[in-house]
Amino acid sequence: MHNFCSDNVTTIAPEIMAALERANNGAAMPYGNDEITKRLEQRVAQIFERSVAVFPVATGTASNALALSALTPPYGAIYCHEHAHIQVDECGAPELYTGGAKLLPLSGASAKVTPGALGAALALGWRGNVHNAQPAVLSLTQATECGTIYRLDEMRALAEIAHAHGLKVHLDGTRFANALVSLNCAPADASWRAGVDVLSLGATKNGAMAAEVVIFFDPALAQTMAFRRKRAGHLFSKMRFISAQMEAYLTDDLWLRNARHANAMARRLADGLAKIHGCRLVHPREANLLFVMLPNRVIDGLEQAGFGFYREGGVRTIRLVTAYNTDPAAVDAFVTAAQQLAAGGPVTMTA
Amino acid sequence: MHNFCSDNVTTIAPEIMAALERANNGAAMPYGNDEITKRLEQRVAQIFERSVAVFPVATGTASNALALSALTPPYGAIYCHEHAHIQVDECGAPELYTGGAKLLPLSGASAKVTPGALGAALALGWRGNVHNAQPAVLSLTQATECGTIYRLDEMRALAEIAHAHGLKVHLDGTRFANALVSLNCAPADASWRAGVDVLSLGATKNGAMAAEVVIFFDPALAQTMAFRRKRAGHLFSKMRFISAQMEAYLTDDLWLRNARHANAMARRLADGLAKIHGCRLVHPREANLLFVMLPNRVIDGLEQAGFGFYREGGVRTIRLVTAYNTDPAAVDAFVTAAQQLAAGGPVTMTA
Amino acid sequence: MHNFCSDNVTTIAPEIMAALERANNGAAMPYGNDEITKRLEQRVAQIFERSVAVFPVATGTASNALALSALTPPYGAIYCHEHAHIQVDECGAPELYTGGAKLLPLSGASAKVTPGALGAALALGWRGNVHNAQPAVLSLTQATECGTIYRLDEMRALAEIAHAHGLKVHLDGTRFANALVSLNCAPADASWRAGVDVLSLGATKNGAMAAEVVIFFDPALAQTMAFRRKRAGHLFSKMRFISAQMEAYLTDDLWLRNARHANAMARRLADGLAKIHGCRLVHPREANLLFVMLPNRVIDGLEQAGFGFYREGGVRTIRLVTAYNTDPAAVDAFVTAAQQLAAGGPVTMTA
Amino acid sequence: MHNFCSDNVTTIAPEIMAALERANNGAAMPYGNDEITKRLEQRVAQIFERSVAVFPVATGTASNALALSALTPPYGAIYCHEHAHIQVDECGAPELYTGGAKLLPLSGASAKVTPGALGAALALGWRGNVHNAQPAVLSLTQATECGTIYRLDEMRALAEIAHAHGLKVHLDGTRFANALVSLNCAPADASWRAGVDVLSLGATKNGAMAAEVVIFFDPALAQTMAFRRKRAGHLFSKMRFISAQMEAYLTDDLWLRNARHANAMARRLADGLAKIHGCRLVHPREANLLFVMLPNRVIDGLEQAGFGFYREGGVRTIRLVTAYNTDPAAVDAFVTAAQQLAAGGPVTMTA
Repeated sequence: MHNFCSDNVTTIAPEIMAALERANNGAAMPYGNDEITKRLEQRVAQIFERSVAVFPVATGTASNALALSALTPPYGAIYCHEHAHIQVDECGAPELYTGGAKLLPLSGASAKVTPGALGAALALGWRGNVHNAQPAVLSLTQATECGTIYRLDEMRALAEIAHAHGLKVHLDGTRFANALVSLNCAPADASWRAGVDVLSLGATKNGAMAAEVVIFFDPALAQTMAFRRKRAGHLFSKMRFISAQMEAYLTDDLWLRNARHANAMARRLADGLAKIHGCRLVHPREANLLFVMLPNRVIDGLEQAGFGFYREGGVRTIRLVTAYNTDPAAVDAFVTAAQQLAAGGPVTMTA
Repeated sequence: MHNFCSDNVTTIAPEIMAALERANNGAAMPYGNDEITKRLEQRVAQIFERSVAVFPVATGTASNALALSALTPPYGAIYCHEHAHIQVDECGAPELYTGGAKLLPLSGASAKVTPGALGAALALGWRGNVHNAQPAVLSLTQATECGTIYRLDEMRALAEIAHAHGLKVHLDGTRFANALVSLNCAPADASWRAGVDVLSLGATKNGAMAAEVVIFFDPALAQTMAFRRKRAGHLFSKMRFISAQMEAYLTDDLWLRNARHANAMARRLADGLAKIHGCRLVHPREANLLFVMLPNRVIDGLEQAGFGFYREGGVRTIRLVTAYNTDPAAVDAFVTAAQQLAAGGPVTMTA
Repeated sequence: MHNFCSDNVTTIAPEIMAALERANNGAAMPYGNDEITKRLEQRVAQIFERSVAVFPVATGTASNALALSALTPPYGAIYCHEHAHIQVDECGAPELYTGGAKLLPLSGASAKVTPGALGAALALGWRGNVHNAQPAVLSLTQATECGTIYRLDEMRALAEIAHAHGLKVHLDGTRFANALVSLNCAPADASWRAGVDVLSLGATKNGAMAAEVVIFFDPALAQTMAFRRKRAGHLFSKMRFISAQMEAYLTDDLWLRNARHANAMARRLADGLAKIHGCRLVHPREANLLFVMLPNRVIDGLEQAGFGFYREGGVRTIRLVTAYNTDPAAVDAFVTAAQQLAAGGPVTMTA
Repeated sequence: MHNFCSDNVTTIAPEIMAALERANNGAAMPYGNDEITKRLEQRVAQIFERSVAVFPVATGTASNALALSALTPPYGAIYCHEHAHIQVDECGAPELYTGGAKLLPLSGASAKVTPGALGAALALGWRGNVHNAQPAVLSLTQATECGTIYRLDEMRALAEIAHAHGLKVHLDGTRFANALVSLNCAPADASWRAGVDVLSLGATKNGAMAAEVVIFFDPALAQTMAFRRKRAGHLFSKMRFISAQMEAYLTDDLWLRNARHANAMARRLADGLAKIHGCRLVHPREANLLFVMLPNRVIDGLEQAGFGFYREGGVRTIRLVTAYNTDPAAVDAFVTAAQQLAAGGPVTMTA
């Protein structure tokens, strides 16, 4: 596989496919009233060391938008980074699900919200002023859309500001596992102990077919969630097949193993590219996404050689994403090709 | 399997599971830009003998609500039966997706909208009157929520009234295959040739894991649909795994074979129950749902014997649903148990 | 004035016009932070014998839709008569303001919800079932859209059923004063003592230019209301000019005097028409609206003679509305003309 | 009057009050089917030298939000300045009315959108990409929230960029008259000839009680507007009393005369303050709003002396707004007091 477009171009991990096959055994009551979903709830609670409310859904956008809709009134304000997936890449899903809440984009290097930007926005004094949207949620992404990671103290600092202003903290964890192995801490440390109230935990990009779960660390916040999920068309009748994916994902450290591999492949890729003259990482490599500035000639050549990746906005920068099943040989082939192109030569592919 | 609660308590059909396994082979571009989804589009066009716009989604509620949202302005009116799934069982999903359209429930025996009820509602003259919701859609269900079926001439008559008043016709086809084999006609006859503009075609209840598809017979009506699906969180990154289910479903007549079996099991069940004194079908048996009135003592006994079914609203009526994989032996066991109970005796189960 | 189309075709009552002129005196802080609005709040509390939360707005539709939006989640169900203004005549405003709540129309003679219809709807057991819209509000209209009136015991009985099922009770009081003088009771008796939680009290149809007020008898229910009003564009910067109208309306019994006159004129009209052969009141005359069945020839003749009224839906029925300023001579002229036409003769107008 | 808080703290201008009194004469058909509203439509067309669609409403927020809702799909993007009223001061009204469109805030000095900021935002290439909100509207404010004014060439340049990207151009003209007299051009020059597609023209802040009008320069864009206005509760039954205000406003140049006075008073105020040491205008004075930086001691002293104004966000800056009826003596008193305070002395008020 030489496709570095995204970690969502991947297949289903064998352990998860096997779980789907095991789950396909006899009738089961629908809409989450099945044994597998019950077991999943216990598994999540155990892994996060806390009593939680758990809502399996099938897409990251649904997971984010539903979580937000449980945390804000329709006249609320959601603070997020200007590059956040919820702001840029969900075609207004948060606005739809919340009934029209306002997303307020904050700036900050490498897709990380800074305490300064958050503090300044909250200092405007909107709370209680009937003319302004009412501050309701801080939404962070971990790992971020730039592949960077909030350190635990950074996240705690942001959550503290948010909570001090009466906001809830949501974490878009579509790549939470990639962050977790990079932070090398317990799931609880990287979530509720760092101030996260609700986590949208993704598995789709890390080996599942289509499985995400919204985790409320304070179940009281989840009171409206079951109704919201249903009326959004995200209550699956055969929910056990989502739950089974997620259960397998959280079993025997599969999520961590898969993430470790993806991150290792990104490191291998970054290390290889670092040796190329004129090649520069736009953001620190901390998870499984790289944003690489390269000469246009090299980019064009890589594309012609059949490597898959997205070009970023303007010029000379490409996004490379590694995944749970990225082949080291593919990484090496990419690096070699880039080196050859940078040296002015043609690409000689061995595979 | 002795669970007659719903056709959504079932497993995944072997042909569909095999298709999932085949699809799990190598990287593929996300969000429907894959080969399987392209093939599915062609398959649907071929089966329905027409150029169509095709949108795979994963739940019936999403399929219905998204289709409706493409057909009505937010100030529109959607006419449907008072027992329609979109009115009763979707927790307001159509209202959410349409931005607040109004569902106008019509009465009619056995969940079938009558030309009289529809005509009377439209005769109120709301079109163009700024005070009223604007008539936009007629939504029918085939097979209906009561397990009955619109004959083709009935559907054409309703669609004619609708079109004459400027409405579009939506068909909730969560059990379209069950209707189709009962009508014994071509898919095109039961849809666009009968006046249907948009079909929400379901597979989940007939053997899929989670696969539905919205089919626009006039692609011009679908112009906003891609955006609506995305912002609803129903654009799957690994869409090929939905498309693969649906492709298998529509291959080698699997959908028809599965539906024929389900319908045959319902007939076997109805025939068996017909011999019981005091047993009465509340609605005609035309697909794979039965609503059966039985003495309370019999109902209680069946429940105690471990048979699964839902009790309807008030008294003495139960809903029995057969599926693509219903075991004839399970049907016979149910009938025998009901007979024994009706005769005043205990149930003697052999299995 | 020979216009019986509606009580909204009328001028501004002199007392209210005078109040507008008095209010137009010097600067005042905007958005309700003015003296007149403060006085109005006290006046309403005094008249209704209770601590209340008061929200002046300018249209009946806004008053109803905002009140409902404070009482239901977006996935809620609002029970109302099938002829209710909120269901028929607001182009989906309740759906917009509530974020997509579902209005469930109930039948009942003369636009009055019956305990039977309400009880049957609530007996469906939707509460807590994630598939169904969640029962949230009972909305009644007093006087009704047919000009009838709920007796206090009728209203209490309905409110009791509603409250027993966890619903809040909203009253569309666009013609509350007309009902009040007919019931001949205290405002408190006809509202919160009868079980009403929130009253949309209208003045526009009874002599104001544009003035309505939402009254929460339990201020705790109003917590989100200030934000909802603002984001609906119904927070007036120069609110004192709405408040001044409403204050004048509630001063020196102006609302009751105006309503008494309107009701008396309706009685005079009904009494006169009662003597005409072939004339029949479709609904009991209890406030200031009459629905009169007349020979088509008479209706046509009245129209040609220049009288203003609306024809109802189908055939042979017209709606006649009297107002605070209806001229008895206009009533008599109408009756005389109808008599002449019924007798087969031409209309001889003296005025 | 020494209240410089806003131009909405003012009374009703005598010409407009007289128009209300004249309009209060006899019955008239409701909901805009009256003579005055018809005349207003012609007046607007005449003044703007073009066939237009005209929708009177009562608040600026309604006027803006309704206009936007006619121009964007629910998944659309609205580009505006980060200080725009629609972004900051309407508690999410645009989001409500549009069904969840996304406002994208642009930066720029003194509340003016720059071609650079707009171009950069549009260069992201969201159009047609299903993941992104779809670019739909550019909304400008004239005069801006900082009291500055787009020159005609500036507005044309922005509109050109917008139109080239398929956007419609909306103008929040709550203070359009103030801009117009400052630009000293024809209304058509400052609106559609400069590329504006829809204008929310305000009168409330310039002498009306509550009167705004949405003007579509391309009536084809207004097709859904009547329904949207009604379902928003902004279709007034006695609309003639809004239309009468607006008609008077646009008669005998009242709007221009009032605006000229307000602007002149702002100039007088600015000129007076300019002589004070340590006093600085934060934004250019171009209309009737001043943002003035003053020593805290001066600000406190002015407040204690009874002058009304709002303090801006942080420190040392106040907003002063003059109006159609600002008394020159009040301006002079303010300047004198500020001078005395700046000189270290006490305030000696003569009035």
